[in-house]
Amino acid sequence: MLIDRPAVSLDDYTERARAVLPPDVWDYVAGGSAAEVTLAGNRRGLDRVAVLPRVLRGIGTVDLRTRLLGRPYAMPVGVAPMAYQRLMHPDGELALAAAAGAAGVPYVASTLASTPIEQITGAGAEVWFQLYWLRERAMVRDLLDRVVAAGCRALMLTVDVPVLGRHPRDLRNAFRLPADVVAANLPDGRGALAHTGAPGVAAVAASFAPALRWADLAWIREQVDLPLVVKGVLDPRDAVEAVRVGADAVVVSNHGGRQLDGAPASITMLPEVLDAVGDRCQVLLDSGIRGGTDVLRALALGAAGVLVGRPLLWALAAGGQPAAREALALLAAELTDALTLAGCPDPAAAAGLRTVELR
Amino acid sequence: MLIDRPAVSLDDYTERARAVLPPDVWDYVAGGSAAEVTLAGNRRGLDRVAVLPRVLRGIGTVDLRTRLLGRPYAMPVGVAPMAYQRLMHPDGELALAAAAGAAGVPYVASTLASTPIEQITGAGAEVWFQLYWLRERAMVRDLLDRVVAAGCRALMLTVDVPVLGRHPRDLRNAFRLPADVVAANLPDGRGALAHTGAPGVAAVAASFAPALRWADLAWIREQVDLPLVVKGVLDPRDAVEAVRVGADAVVVSNHGGRQLDGAPASITMLPEVLDAVGDRCQVLLDSGIRGGTDVLRALALGAAGVLVGRPLLWALAAGGQPAAREALALLAAELTDALTLAGCPDPAAAAGLRTVELR
Amino acid sequence: MLIDRPAVSLDDYTERARAVLPPDVWDYVAGGSAAEVTLAGNRRGLDRVAVLPRVLRGIGTVDLRTRLLGRPYAMPVGVAPMAYQRLMHPDGELALAAAAGAAGVPYVASTLASTPIEQITGAGAEVWFQLYWLRERAMVRDLLDRVVAAGCRALMLTVDVPVLGRHPRDLRNAFRLPADVVAANLPDGRGALAHTGAPGVAAVAASFAPALRWADLAWIREQVDLPLVVKGVLDPRDAVEAVRVGADAVVVSNHGGRQLDGAPASITMLPEVLDAVGDRCQVLLDSGIRGGTDVLRALALGAAGVLVGRPLLWALAAGGQPAAREALALLAAELTDALTLAGCPDPAAAAGLRTVELR
Amino acid sequence: MLIDRPAVSLDDYTERARAVLPPDVWDYVAGGSAAEVTLAGNRRGLDRVAVLPRVLRGIGTVDLRTRLLGRPYAMPVGVAPMAYQRLMHPDGELALAAAAGAAGVPYVASTLASTPIEQITGAGAEVWFQLYWLRERAMVRDLLDRVVAAGCRALMLTVDVPVLGRHPRDLRNAFRLPADVVAANLPDGRGALAHTGAPGVAAVAASFAPALRWADLAWIREQVDLPLVVKGVLDPRDAVEAVRVGADAVVVSNHGGRQLDGAPASITMLPEVLDAVGDRCQVLLDSGIRGGTDVLRALALGAAGVLVGRPLLWALAAGGQPAAREALALLAAELTDALTLAGCPDPAAAAGLRTVELR
Ligand SMILES: Cc1cc2nc3c(=O)[nH]c(=O)nc-3n(C[C@H](O)[C@H](O)[C@H](O)COP(=O)(O)O)c2cc1C
Ligand SMILES: Cc1cc2nc3c(=O)[nH]c(=O)nc-3n(C[C@H](O)[C@H](O)[C@H](O)COP(=O)(O)O)c2cc1C
Ligand SMILES: Cc1cc2nc3c(=O)[nH]c(=O)nc-3n(C[C@H](O)[C@H](O)[C@H](O)COP(=O)(O)O)c2cc1C
Ligand SMILES: Cc1cc2nc3c(=O)[nH]c(=O)nc-3n(C[C@H](O)[C@H](O)[C@H](O)COP(=O)(O)O)c2cc1C
Repeated sequence: MLIDRPAVSLDDYTERARAVLPPDVWDYVAGGSAAEVTLAGNRRGLDRVAVLPRVLRGIGTVDLRTRLLGRPYAMPVGVAPMAYQRLMHPDGELALAAAAGAAGVPYVASTLASTPIEQITGAGAEVWFQLYWLRERAMVRDLLDRVVAAGCRALMLTVDVPVLGRHPRDLRNAFRLPADVVAANLPDGRGALAHTGAPGVAAVAASFAPALRWADLAWIREQVDLPLVVKGVLDPRDAVEAVRVGADAVVVSNHGGRQLDGAPASITMLPEVLDAVGDRCQVLLDSGIRGGTDVLRALALGAAGVLVGRPLLWALAAGGQPAAREALALLAAELTDALTLAGCPDPAAAAGLRTVELR
Repeated sequence: MLIDRPAVSLDDYTERARAVLPPDVWDYVAGGSAAEVTLAGNRRGLDRVAVLPRVLRGIGTVDLRTRLLGRPYAMPVGVAPMAYQRLMHPDGELALAAAAGAAGVPYVASTLASTPIEQITGAGAEVWFQLYWLRERAMVRDLLDRVVAAGCRALMLTVDVPVLGRHPRDLRNAFRLPADVVAANLPDGRGALAHTGAPGVAAVAASFAPALRWADLAWIREQVDLPLVVKGVLDPRDAVEAVRVGADAVVVSNHGGRQLDGAPASITMLPEVLDAVGDRCQVLLDSGIRGGTDVLRALALGAAGVLVGRPLLWALAAGGQPAAREALALLAAELTDALTLAGCPDPAAAAGLRTVELR
Repeated sequence: MLIDRPAVSLDDYTERARAVLPPDVWDYVAGGSAAEVTLAGNRRGLDRVAVLPRVLRGIGTVDLRTRLLGRPYAMPVGVAPMAYQRLMHPDGELALAAAAGAAGVPYVASTLASTPIEQITGAGAEVWFQLYWLRERAMVRDLLDRVVAAGCRALMLTVDVPVLGRHPRDLRNAFRLPADVVAANLPDGRGALAHTGAPGVAAVAASFAPALRWADLAWIREQVDLPLVVKGVLDPRDAVEAVRVGADAVVVSNHGGRQLDGAPASITMLPEVLDAVGDRCQVLLDSGIRGGTDVLRALALGAAGVLVGRPLLWALAAGGQPAAREALALLAAELTDALTLAGCPDPAAAAGLRTVELR
Repeated sequence: MLIDRPAVSLDDYTERARAVLPPDVWDYVAGGSAAEVTLAGNRRGLDRVAVLPRVLRGIGTVDLRTRLLGRPYAMPVGVAPMAYQRLMHPDGELALAAAAGAAGVPYVASTLASTPIEQITGAGAEVWFQLYWLRERAMVRDLLDRVVAAGCRALMLTVDVPVLGRHPRDLRNAFRLPADVVAANLPDGRGALAHTGAPGVAAVAASFAPALRWADLAWIREQVDLPLVVKGVLDPRDAVEAVRVGADAVVVSNHGGRQLDGAPASITMLPEVLDAVGDRCQVLLDSGIRGGTDVLRALALGAAGVLVGRPLLWALAAGGQPAAREALALLAAELTDALTLAGCPDPAAAAGLRTVELR
């Protein structure tokens, strides 16, 4: 019934998803690491960015189109890489990728996708592939070959997961993946990386590669000829490193509050990262984006675009591909609205807006 | 019963109105755009302005009289332009204008008034006309002719509505105007601008003119020989533009949190706007004013006066013209009280008070 | 029953008083003016002052004795002037003054005391007299003669009441003084100054003197040869005026949040007032003091002492003179404790402590 | 039942302890002094420290080992000195010391331990002895002889207890130690220092030595040839004094909010103390540490390590030695996790992290 009425904000999907998902699955998505201070901080950090609208700028119609990584998209928004989307809905990655395709935005496929990458790229969206650098380099090698062959448009290396963060909700729920949801792109998807509900991170830590260094990115650059995005940077010094090794873009992110708890809101660090590398690569942002106003906040501070995570999983859970499409259309409408009200004919114009701290 | 007892603060009318209005109408007035961050921020922004009273200044009686736009009024307060006042009470605009007249304050009639402007100007108040610049210039032209003929004293151009903001409450309530409440001053009042409850802004957007530029104000100046007020400025650069094209006053406003959500509290931007144009035009403020202390805050920061919105609609809903009169009298009493306690014989003296940030 | 157990903090009396007083009387004391923003701000302002204790200072026993206005008292605390204490308890002013005497602290008798000043001075405490400058100078003249004859030790002129602040709680409760509680020191105690529950301040305003100026204090100085305290200063410029006209002390105060709502916490203004006049007169503080830690905060910032208001009325209501005595003893114990823990052998030493802002 | 499931955060033990302890005992441990402003401030102070993780630092495995006072420990954490641990569990100090031993961290035995120091040193941990300097120097002398003979590794002098702080909860509960829990290392353990539930601090104050001075530490240095730690410093000037008299380490602490209420969070003062003495002695911190993220915060600001208080008492109460062991193992796991996610191979590396204020 709820689902019969159109959503008026992305938060509507949160409640709908909560109604349909098993509580432990809902917690797995909604939760953050440790005391969830960073998770809450993302919201507060965004709300503190007040944007000064300009008026009478003669903007006519707003044009949301944006180039990301040199390619044209319908708006400055991408679907964040998120594991195991079949937990949300039987159609999983295929549904969300198809929705992204319909919306004209990039879909970032996770290393831990529960659908083979070759099927995802067939769903209609431009697909970027998110890589977790696993301990066995051969496994990475094979994966990259498939990624290129499948026609992915960019490679996004997630660097804030040397190990998985501890998620108290999952530990409390003894959360385990159901048998039919596996990391479909890994040799032994289930056994290797599944969330096992063990109280430590030992079970999965074995698969990640905390020993990785910036120098190792050179190896990646040799393997694939795709634009490279480094996701999970907060300290401007790391953004500088990323550019030095050849990143085409960085994503300022705290992984939606799921990795180091106590890290600042990503929006808080955006200005400094832009100062450090904004003239040398594109800077994207994620963590906490919940509507058009949030996108405007990021654009006003200078981001080239944002990734959106949980809200799209909630939409997927609430109503599969149609709901996910609707969610992206709603976001586009909200962003059009926010830009119009701020006097900006396009996303780039937002960089000229002033922001003040809301207290 | 509640209504039998005199209100002791403007907030009392809020509760009374809630008791008598249909919930969706109450929401239409009370609500703001998007996540209502700016709506809440207006209150917080005002509360953070602490005013230092002066003592033993020999003030005798306080004299609230103030000149706004070169004309004398009984206090530095005006009734903000608000659409469709017949939603509140059958007497609508006529009742509120009459109350303004009795209180000696200007009544700003909205382009979207539900009563013809010629009747409003006959209700006893000095009327300023608020203009929404519509797409069809001929329509604007006709309206301005009527405005002048009806004897309006000033023209207030609202510049923060290139399109209507998205109001989640209205969308959720599928709020529609009742058949008998129309934009009485527009050729096809109902069809053109009514709130349709559609989930997008498309239906009404068609009527507004986002392509308007500052240069177009020259055209307005030629049409009417009335003082010009620009309402809806937050960025000081826009205040400078307004003065450049000949505005006699600007209203620092975020439209009561109904347009760009994420915009700062208007009180937060007041000092900067005053720095930019305070010596060249009058600066008014609205958004969140709820009592005499709030008026004092704005005056202490240097505003020439304020507009009050929702509280007067609530009074109108609660008890028609008598209640609206009572509300304005209460506000005058509170302001007299606040000025007396602050050691100010008149509104102008408040500009000499110091403010500190309350934390 | 509650009353059988000793209070462990001054707040305990608040609850006890609430249990025994008629609700409208409780509200009259507890409430503040307008939106009660300043009332709440006093608490927050104090809590934000973090005091850095010093250690191993060899303090032995703490000696609370302090000179105020050149006379020795048992601690740097006085009973704030408060009207109509017979509202709390039949023994009213006599009980609280006796308690002050037992505690060795000054009792400030209000112009609006419900007991004749000659009886109050006989109750055992050193009494200071608080003067509201009334419109009729002859009335003031008579009062001052009686004050001197009765043996009061100081004259405290309250300057923040050009009119009484509007108290929404009282208006809502239509609060009126009971017939047997009158301003016992005024010719027509009841009629002149009683709280009438009228929705304006007109009824009582007639008795106060908003036209008073600093210059008029010269007249006062001629009438009485007592130390002069000016109570109700927040702006340092007013403190300078007070010293200029010969004040021996000022009380930084917002009248416990009962006069100008929107005024800052008095503790917030204390440092600036001390900078302005601290070397030329004693600076006291009131508004929000609720325990020994609060006294320490004021002392650490440089105050010579504090006045305590409502908590002592609550104690009086809860248990008459014994409870008021107990409350002052508790405050002394708390202050001894706080000074000991902060490494201060006496109140004066607290001025050497550093404070930081607690956030 | 609760106890059958492994704890996923230290806070879990709080609830478990609450379920098994008598309410007054729970309050005795959980509570703070006066209005508990400092108690709450510790949590808020820590949460405001946002730590910027570094990425791709090639950290492999994290090594938590740390030298404190020149000796190697398994992690930069010690068990804070806490009185009367047999209140929590019959095994009291022996259980907690054994758990510390198993975890490889120092156990600080309190002067008010409810178990003889000679037994505590036999429980398997490296023991540091915490000294309350009592009025009778002979008593101190005897105690120190036993401490050295028992093989303690360090002497920690607590300087923030010239008298015990007033704890309203204990006063309200009329909390008294049960007959079988005594200060086992004092000649007349029960009578001398027990918490008597009297509304003042008189009963116990007799035993402490508020007259102590920094100079007296010289005497201590002569008595024992052990590393000296000064615990309970907030003002950097006191840290300088401590170093001047020969302290090898200071503990920045507000005694977990149990002594001077109104004191700042210890984390707030850490940077200044480090500036003052960080190059001349080790700086530890306690008060409010509740998990690995908090330890990281302290390390990032430059602390050499932290002490943990209440959480370990809760674990002890919830499940004796096994639970305390589990709690310390959990803390080690959380710290490993936090350091890994922050890109730090060891605790020392954390000092290179940047922090920003979370608002
Ligand atoms: C359930 C879930 C799974 C995720 N899986 C991945 C992943 O596999 N790879 C990755 O780089 N980020 C992953 N993320 C992080 C997201 O890419 C993104 O950084 C984060 O969700 C953004 O914050 P938001 O959810 O507040 O929008 C995941 C996030 C969630 C909520
Ligand atoms: C129900 C409603 C209708 C409004 N209609 C108009 C309008 O037609 N034209 C306009 O310029 N502003 C309009 N406003 C904005 C007000 O003029 C004013 O800026 C705002 O209400 C001030 O904030 P306040 O309500 O917090 O006092 C409207 C506001 C409300 C609440
Ligand atoms: C019930 C009540 C009556 C008061 N009457 C007087 C008065 O007659 N004269 C005066 O100077 N201040 C008066 N005050 C203000 C107090 O002197 C003092 O400034 C204030 O109570 C301090 O704040 P606190 O109550 O938070 O301690 C009154 C306060 C209360 C609560
Ligand atoms: C029940 C209890 C007893 C304590 N007893 C002592 C003590 O005997 N000696 C001492 O130096 N500190 C004592 N403390 C303070 C701790 O050593 C430590 O400073 C404080 O608990 C740290 O804060 P936390 O509990 O928030 O971790 C005690 C603390 C508690 C909670």
